[in-house]
Amino acid sequence: MADNTIPSSMRVVGIRGGKGGADAVTIERIPTPAAADGQILIRVRGAGVNRPDIVQRQGLYPPPPGASPVMGLEVAGEVAAVGTGVTRWKVSDHVTALLPGGGYAEYAVVDARHALPVPKGLTPVQAAALPETVFTVWSNVFERGRLVAGETVLIHGANSGIGVTAIQMAKACGARVFATARGAEKAARAKQTGADLAIDASAGSWVESVKAAGGVDLVLDMVGRDYFEGNVDVLKPEGRLSVIATLTGHRVELDLRKLMLKRLTLTASTLRAREADEKARLARAIEERVWPWIEAGKVSPLIDKTLPLAEAGAAHTWLESGSQFGKVVLTP
Amino acid sequence: MADNTIPSSMRVVGIRGGKGGADAVTIERIPTPAAADGQILIRVRGAGVNRPDIVQRQGLYPPPPGASPVMGLEVAGEVAAVGTGVTRWKVSDHVTALLPGGGYAEYAVVDARHALPVPKGLTPVQAAALPETVFTVWSNVFERGRLVAGETVLIHGANSGIGVTAIQMAKACGARVFATARGAEKAARAKQTGADLAIDASAGSWVESVKAAGGVDLVLDMVGRDYFEGNVDVLKPEGRLSVIATLTGHRVELDLRKLMLKRLTLTASTLRAREADEKARLARAIEERVWPWIEAGKVSPLIDKTLPLAEAGAAHTWLESGSQFGKVVLTP
Repeated sequence: MADNTIPSSMRVVGIRGGKGGADAVTIERIPTPAAADGQILIRVRGAGVNRPDIVQRQGLYPPPPGASPVMGLEVAGEVAAVGTGVTRWKVSDHVTALLPGGGYAEYAVVDARHALPVPKGLTPVQAAALPETVFTVWSNVFERGRLVAGETVLIHGANSGIGVTAIQMAKACGARVFATARGAEKAARAKQTGADLAIDASAGSWVESVKAAGGVDLVLDMVGRDYFEGNVDVLKPEGRLSVIATLTGHRVELDLRKLMLKRLTLTASTLRAREADEKARLARAIEERVWPWIEAGKVSPLIDKTLPLAEAGAAHTWLESGSQFGKVVLTP
Repeated sequence: MADNTIPSSMRVVGIRGGKGGADAVTIERIPTPAAADGQILIRVRGAGVNRPDIVQRQGLYPPPPGASPVMGLEVAGEVAAVGTGVTRWKVSDHVTALLPGGGYAEYAVVDARHALPVPKGLTPVQAAALPETVFTVWSNVFERGRLVAGETVLIHGANSGIGVTAIQMAKACGARVFATARGAEKAARAKQTGADLAIDASAGSWVESVKAAGGVDLVLDMVGRDYFEGNVDVLKPEGRLSVIATLTGHRVELDLRKLMLKRLTLTASTLRAREADEKARLARAIEERVWPWIEAGKVSPLIDKTLPLAEAGAAHTWLESGSQFGKVVLTP
């Protein structure tokens, strides 16, 4: 649908040479996309920064077919235009959405079913920090990981956007939360965020600490190889290990007998590669189950930094340093 | 409860020296056990032979605490005595039961909740062939593996008791079944048993055959190391691998990235080590969901051989040769 307030071109974050270091990140102008059938065009007010953006910048994570080549997997803002067949949204609705790409921009198009209303009381920057972490945690901790009230979950990387969200959502559901982070300060902040037990993984064995505390029913892991054996060892009978990234490597040795004797389940997944219908299903489940936690204040986006679009490179450098606590959001 | 038709001692299968080869298997006399609170005593008419019995004979699989040291994980027969607190069964009821041990005997005691009625139309020998395979398949293919109608399952070791039962139960639920066995004759029998595609794993690559047929949603595996990578590779997105034994070894290399990209789930379990309450829950689920399949003739125990108790050693040798098709049952 035409909307003459929409400029024909827009600013986006590009990468000089197509891939490279954070210093290759630059601002470019490209044509503003149009909302195709079933899509909405969003005037971006906040674009969340995520680790997969860095891997894409390095040329190691090509966007899926049909997705924008621009980085950025989540935005919030106002609906600027509505494609044919879209009934749920109208122009100027405040939405937040999960994208297959194209978020580091002034405008972004998305499957209308992958958008959710901005929860009451949240700013666009806060709302932009939600989709990647909430979709990931919902899918991996609650659906695949089957966490229920009364169980204990171990969350690694407690200082990451996903870590913070996982701590809050697990507490909201009534679970007990153990968390690891590297450094005493980050561990202390994980505890403030709600963790019942926060472990400084850079000081001694987190495996022994978790075992001494009785083990866990579920581990949410993004570390991969270096933590793999420990993750298996701290699980209680019928425990689950849910892997969402492999920052230290993806080739591991597994003792199937350990899995058999404790009747463990190991699952791993990525969000971006899923079918559009599956993401739409997740969006509806999240709106029903997680949005009430956000509106009740049990889950609240923790914003570490807000930076203008032109400083996307600096945002990446900050994330790569591992110093953040919570989410980094770009504002166009 | 006293019952003066029960002899004070009984014949059981023993192992000379406590452990050894099939030639160490012998007949011994020991006191007939009494039904404790919550237990029933069964006059054994058929005792199923299973691979774990062989591992126990070799001294590598000690019985769990409290279990009889005698081999044998399943029996069928008549209730000979009922312990206090048991309301479901009365003397002379025909039952089949999952045991933690003690099945290779004239009498066996068992938690009353782990017994099920002999399905209509089945002989005690047929009924004795059910518990280990049906509990294992129900737990690993349907509960942990989440097989549903319309999906495709790959069943290895199609000639084993578990393989035959898995083929029948998967077909009964409306799934498509691929099966592997070593040798053309066993593959042909797997096909007669109901497999839609039966692969002779000793002739060429079963991995390529399964891939060419479109892959599968679930693999039920008892082979372990030698089949592990192939099992991961033939799974479709959201596929599950359910490991119940590791005949070729239990240490494997796993590529977590493959799991992430296809969003796979890997689970492994043993039956014997589970809590009594969990076995009781399984028994009720099986009575509700699987017994109707048996009474409708969709699932029927396939008896390979019946041998007297005194020939338990020969039964083991036969199983160890890998030549069986279906179950071997001992008759006291």
